[in-house]
Amino acid sequence: MPGVQLGSGVQRLRPEPPEELPAQEEQNLLLAAAYVSDAQYNRNVPFQTSPQAIRLYCFYNHWTMRVVTYLFICVDLSLALFEKPALFPLPFVATALAEVLCLAAFSARLVHFAKVTPQMVFWKDTKNICIMVTIVVTLIDLIIYGSLETVYIHSIRWTRALRPVFLINFPESRQIRRAFRSIRNTLPDILYVFLLFLFSVLMFSLMALKLFGDRGLKTAEGAPYFTNILEIVFELYVLVTTANNPDVMMPAYNLSWWYSLYFITYIIINTYIFMSVFLAVVYNNYRKHLKNEIRTLVYLKRHKMIEAFDILKVKVGTEFVVKEATWKQLAKAVAPDISSSHLELLLRISDEGQQGFVDKMNFLRLADLLNIQVVTVNLRRHPLEAWVPRVYQSSLSLLVQRVVRHRVFVWAYDVIILINAIFIALDEKHPFISYAEWLFLALYIIEILLKLYTYEPRAYFGRKQFWNWFDTLIIIAALVATTANATVQSARKYNSRQILDIVLILRILRLLRVIISIERFRVIVTTLINIGPTMLTFGGLVFVVYYAFAVIGMEVFHGKVRFFDPNFTSPDALVCGNPALKGSAFARDRYCKNNFNDLASSFVVLMELTVVNQWHVLAGGFALVTHQAAKLYFILFHIVVVILIVNIFIAFILEAFFVAYSLGKSEIETAIEKKIQELGVGIQEEDVQDWKLTGNMGTRDSTFSGNDGDNTKASKGLYFRIASKSRPFQGTPSPEAPQEGQLLCEAPALLS
Amino acid sequence: MPGVQLGSGVQRLRPEPPEELPAQEEQNLLLAAAYVSDAQYNRNVPFQTSPQAIRLYCFYNHWTMRVVTYLFICVDLSLALFEKPALFPLPFVATALAEVLCLAAFSARLVHFAKVTPQMVFWKDTKNICIMVTIVVTLIDLIIYGSLETVYIHSIRWTRALRPVFLINFPESRQIRRAFRSIRNTLPDILYVFLLFLFSVLMFSLMALKLFGDRGLKTAEGAPYFTNILEIVFELYVLVTTANNPDVMMPAYNLSWWYSLYFITYIIINTYIFMSVFLAVVYNNYRKHLKNEIRTLVYLKRHKMIEAFDILKVKVGTEFVVKEATWKQLAKAVAPDISSSHLELLLRISDEGQQGFVDKMNFLRLADLLNIQVVTVNLRRHPLEAWVPRVYQSSLSLLVQRVVRHRVFVWAYDVIILINAIFIALDEKHPFISYAEWLFLALYIIEILLKLYTYEPRAYFGRKQFWNWFDTLIIIAALVATTANATVQSARKYNSRQILDIVLILRILRLLRVIISIERFRVIVTTLINIGPTMLTFGGLVFVVYYAFAVIGMEVFHGKVRFFDPNFTSPDALVCGNPALKGSAFARDRYCKNNFNDLASSFVVLMELTVVNQWHVLAGGFALVTHQAAKLYFILFHIVVVILIVNIFIAFILEAFFVAYSLGKSEIETAIEKKIQELGVGIQEEDVQDWKLTGNMGTRDSTFSGNDGDNTKASKGLYFRIASKSRPFQGTPSPEAPQEGQLLCEAPALLS
Repeated sequence: MPGVQLGSGVQRLRPEPPEELPAQEEQNLLLAAAYVSDAQYNRNVPFQTSPQAIRLYCFYNHWTMRVVTYLFICVDLSLALFEKPALFPLPFVATALAEVLCLAAFSARLVHFAKVTPQMVFWKDTKNICIMVTIVVTLIDLIIYGSLETVYIHSIRWTRALRPVFLINFPESRQIRRAFRSIRNTLPDILYVFLLFLFSVLMFSLMALKLFGDRGLKTAEGAPYFTNILEIVFELYVLVTTANNPDVMMPAYNLSWWYSLYFITYIIINTYIFMSVFLAVVYNNYRKHLKNEIRTLVYLKRHKMIEAFDILKVKVGTEFVVKEATWKQLAKAVAPDISSSHLELLLRISDEGQQGFVDKMNFLRLADLLNIQVVTVNLRRHPLEAWVPRVYQSSLSLLVQRVVRHRVFVWAYDVIILINAIFIALDEKHPFISYAEWLFLALYIIEILLKLYTYEPRAYFGRKQFWNWFDTLIIIAALVATTANATVQSARKYNSRQILDIVLILRILRLLRVIISIERFRVIVTTLINIGPTMLTFGGLVFVVYYAFAVIGMEVFHGKVRFFDPNFTSPDALVCGNPALKGSAFARDRYCKNNFNDLASSFVVLMELTVVNQWHVLAGGFALVTHQAAKLYFILFHIVVVILIVNIFIAFILEAFFVAYSLGKSEIETAIEKKIQELGVGIQEEDVQDWKLTGNMGTRDSTFSGNDGDNTKASKGLYFRIASKSRPFQGTPSPEAPQEGQLLCEAPALLS
Repeated sequence: MPGVQLGSGVQRLRPEPPEELPAQEEQNLLLAAAYVSDAQYNRNVPFQTSPQAIRLYCFYNHWTMRVVTYLFICVDLSLALFEKPALFPLPFVATALAEVLCLAAFSARLVHFAKVTPQMVFWKDTKNICIMVTIVVTLIDLIIYGSLETVYIHSIRWTRALRPVFLINFPESRQIRRAFRSIRNTLPDILYVFLLFLFSVLMFSLMALKLFGDRGLKTAEGAPYFTNILEIVFELYVLVTTANNPDVMMPAYNLSWWYSLYFITYIIINTYIFMSVFLAVVYNNYRKHLKNEIRTLVYLKRHKMIEAFDILKVKVGTEFVVKEATWKQLAKAVAPDISSSHLELLLRISDEGQQGFVDKMNFLRLADLLNIQVVTVNLRRHPLEAWVPRVYQSSLSLLVQRVVRHRVFVWAYDVIILINAIFIALDEKHPFISYAEWLFLALYIIEILLKLYTYEPRAYFGRKQFWNWFDTLIIIAALVATTANATVQSARKYNSRQILDIVLILRILRLLRVIISIERFRVIVTTLINIGPTMLTFGGLVFVVYYAFAVIGMEVFHGKVRFFDPNFTSPDALVCGNPALKGSAFARDRYCKNNFNDLASSFVVLMELTVVNQWHVLAGGFALVTHQAAKLYFILFHIVVVILIVNIFIAFILEAFFVAYSLGKSEIETAIEKKIQELGVGIQEEDVQDWKLTGNMGTRDSTFSGNDGDNTKASKGLYFRIASKSRPFQGTPSPEAPQEGQLLCEAPALLS
């Protein structure tokens, strides 16, 4: 069964010591509990903290400080754009100064962190040590490089590859760190499989040398075939990535059909089986690790909540409980944004018997309760209904609303989109078609206006209404770009290529909307959109690895391969400005632009290497212009990115889809839902459907079928609904979850 | 949690009606129960069956009948080798005659099956209908083709592609059928993802047409770049397989760095995300389907066992039970090979209180109990000890045995293997080295003889001792081949290349033994070997699909591309004998031998297409020599094999490794093990270790450390051990599990 069972086995299993403090929210709750207790009972709690410390802590967690830190990290990382080999060259003094400034900022941030953290915890934390070491090493490197530069000796600044350390290790990047930890934990297991795999490759290489080495075979390029053991190992390693299949086989296969069996066996064992085993090992570790982290998290949560309970408890009868007023004050302090109706709902759930207090078991659930996103569905009247009720309720207006709510309206627009697609496929040079474009744009704008007229605007642009936002933004952008294009065109009598490109892309993106008309497609797309934020974590992970490899690549390969205009056919241009490439596959395939001459180009080359195809051509080319050992750089990149990171990515997508397939509501969500229904403030399933569709698409229509259900509901005011679909993973915090320290520090009552 | 829980939810969930009868063993038990009941109580059971029917049924299940059926299937499939385009041409009359013979055999088999199956069941079974339709269609096709041939009109024999139907649908190929069912069940889910994926490709194609179509760009070959929407769709489809990355990007990328973003976005969305989603969908369905099948199986088993119980039950006290004698007779009838000590063990487990009868709950476990492989470890004396005890127990002999059992012995041989590897890497032309080869061979033979001297030969060549078998066979084969080679060499003064190739391969395979000296490697390799038999199922599946595609490919493409000797450089040879290929990538890469001119070549081409790399070159080449529509053949092949079958294969490996990682003993195995320990006939864990190592490698040594544990144990005689490690999947029947009907029909007592 996929997914992770929250809380299972927590009591039985003492989890491993946490690597960092993940239960920040409970930490806040605990702090808040200390204050609530102080204010209410005026008693001394066994918990050491001072208002100054709290203020410092909150300042540390303040959003401006975070933004400033990220800004400095960005500046530090972007320095690679300005340093030699640069996209935008700047003198060394300027970049060095900027780097020193960044290092100073990082040091200050670290000192600040040390002040708000117990000393023991601070020094035990590897990531602080990491940052410190990196700062010191970078400074030393900078000084050495600078002093050598003044005497005109050019050395290498290796520490540039260490810059992503800051991105990883500042406490804000917990997600990337988790991904790295996952990789680190996978390493031992993967190592043994990798060694076995290497052994297999070596055995096959030996066999190839014996079988084909002395046949005098030639490759298609006329080079000797399989005569050197090192070359064979490299070729067979490339074959694992399938990049040189079937070329590597052809000379032997041309000799005899039977030799194809050797290669087929090799591919089955090494490409299919071993690569799948790598995926299995990575995936297995990924799941195991995820489970462990969640176990630790749950344990810590419980522990903190018990501490908070012990601070606030009073004895009623035989058992310790927390008074209702205390409970409310605490909840308000922790989550100041909470509406009082929502709070009331939570209280009803926690204080089942309405006895005026919350017992221990229910108190421990507080953080979980606050964490569940209960959407307060405010079925407000349409503003127009409030302002001009006579007009809005007129029969013409009601007819318009009915039409917009009807599914035929959606179908009509689907047809319009399809016609638009055909027009796009046609040549837009014809004046009639370029006028048609204005017509389509007008139709889309009318659609949005009609929907805004019919549905409540704040509901229409709700936080979860991805497609409405998408629609509107695309249309507005298209409007702006098309207008700009037309202006430029009429003023200067020529098309601006850049603007036209944007207009074209926007025009085609509009077609995407057809998808969401089809239910089965919507499910898949919704899952993909839901995992989007966590996929960004992988973006961060890949960026870190790419950055380090790009810096090394630039140091080693820059300037070795040059790009000339493709129409330029001088002999120099044909070999990418490097005679060593003469006759190579690299030059033949015109790969000159795939070089390490600046950061942007390096990233594109690394992307190509990640996709794997033709990577032996790239590796071979760069080995020709430097040294055969340069191939190690490419092999290392392949191991790190393709065998490790891509497999983790696949594991992540697999797990995400399995969870999506078997998504059930958690126990606590069920409890809330029950209470919502009990209290009669719930939206029925069909209403939810309707509500969602109202917001999304307006295909389902309850008012059209006769009864004015929607309007009568609207007058009742407030409804609740659990936004459970927005929580695709129980393991990964959803992007809307409050940030560390945010909850507490935004409670002004607490600090005043 | 991976793996499948046997029996969970069976009571709650009525499974779907089974698609075929999988619980054949229980069917046998039921039949046996009917007979035992007849014999013992001489009463009429409510179960209709006659000795004639049983005999017919057993004849149907007899191994000779199976072998004959498989033989005819092989003949039928291998006809493709002799038909035009043929590897070994035969006249049409011969192949047609052979085919008619095969069809007759299949019909006879089917009629036989109809006789032993209830009519309702027979006609409801799709696979019987399938076979019948295929036979009829093939006959009609054969007649039409034959009559047209007599008037010299050449038509096409399409039904040749249907031949694998026989391989799939005869009841013996249950595994392949299960895999096909798995694919069929996955289709609806995969279809929607595929449509969405196609939509995405189309959107990107439209965008590419607009962005790049009117720039006048040229590819590296000088062809116009992205001007035709159909070509763009094909190129972008190829990009999903990564086969034309980065070539497809280069012209746009050369124009501007920004256009690389278009391709990177495309690759992330379509290659990484969509392909992972395909894997997720396939994997999820695979697991779901596996779970359902096992649920059905468990339900059916239970049902049959209850029927059997009802036949045999007698009333003792207040409850119905089965008498011990009846139970024994039944077990003996079902599993005649069972040793009486093993039977006694099972009885002790079933009749916990030794009351002389077996209650219902324990009776229902009978089939499971019989299914668990309890290895009767017969710690026999070494035969030499029995024959010449004085010599075998002499101090010299004991010393030899100690040395062989010592781990240094293993290490010494590891070193010898490594030295051997170095010698192999050196040139074997030198006479000294070719003498060394004889020395190594002698050393290996001595090793095997020494081990046979020390360990009991029957234990050494036990059924599970894969590596001992491997070792011995490799050495014997090497001995034979090397001798043959030396004979040929000395007689004819030249090396026979074929024999030398075999000698070389055998020599290198010997090096594999180093792996098993390392514990961590052994675990991985053991898992791989355990899943080997089930992997053969995939071999069958792939073969069926390949065969159908190969036949179609041969009809469409044969003779279009011809292979010339690679040294032959006439203009005709350079374009593979087809002027249409002039200037194509296909001809440039010298892919002439990748053709559909016979079955063997077709299979190799299809293998290359499965590996995907350069498949656009192959597809493009064959499209050039026939028609652009031929690309559809290659796209279809990609969808079927790469998107479906390869993903199922990966899913299978993932599941296998997850199960291996979390392998625990089932409840019933634990019960048996407990009883084994209780009865004091168990081998302790360390003994098992020792026993295994004794069999495998002899690294652990208990006798060397002073006490003669091994010998004292040996005198006690019989020990039991559960061969649980040999059952890597609870879902897939292990290859040693008795075949359908085998158990019953091999019970001679029952039929006499």
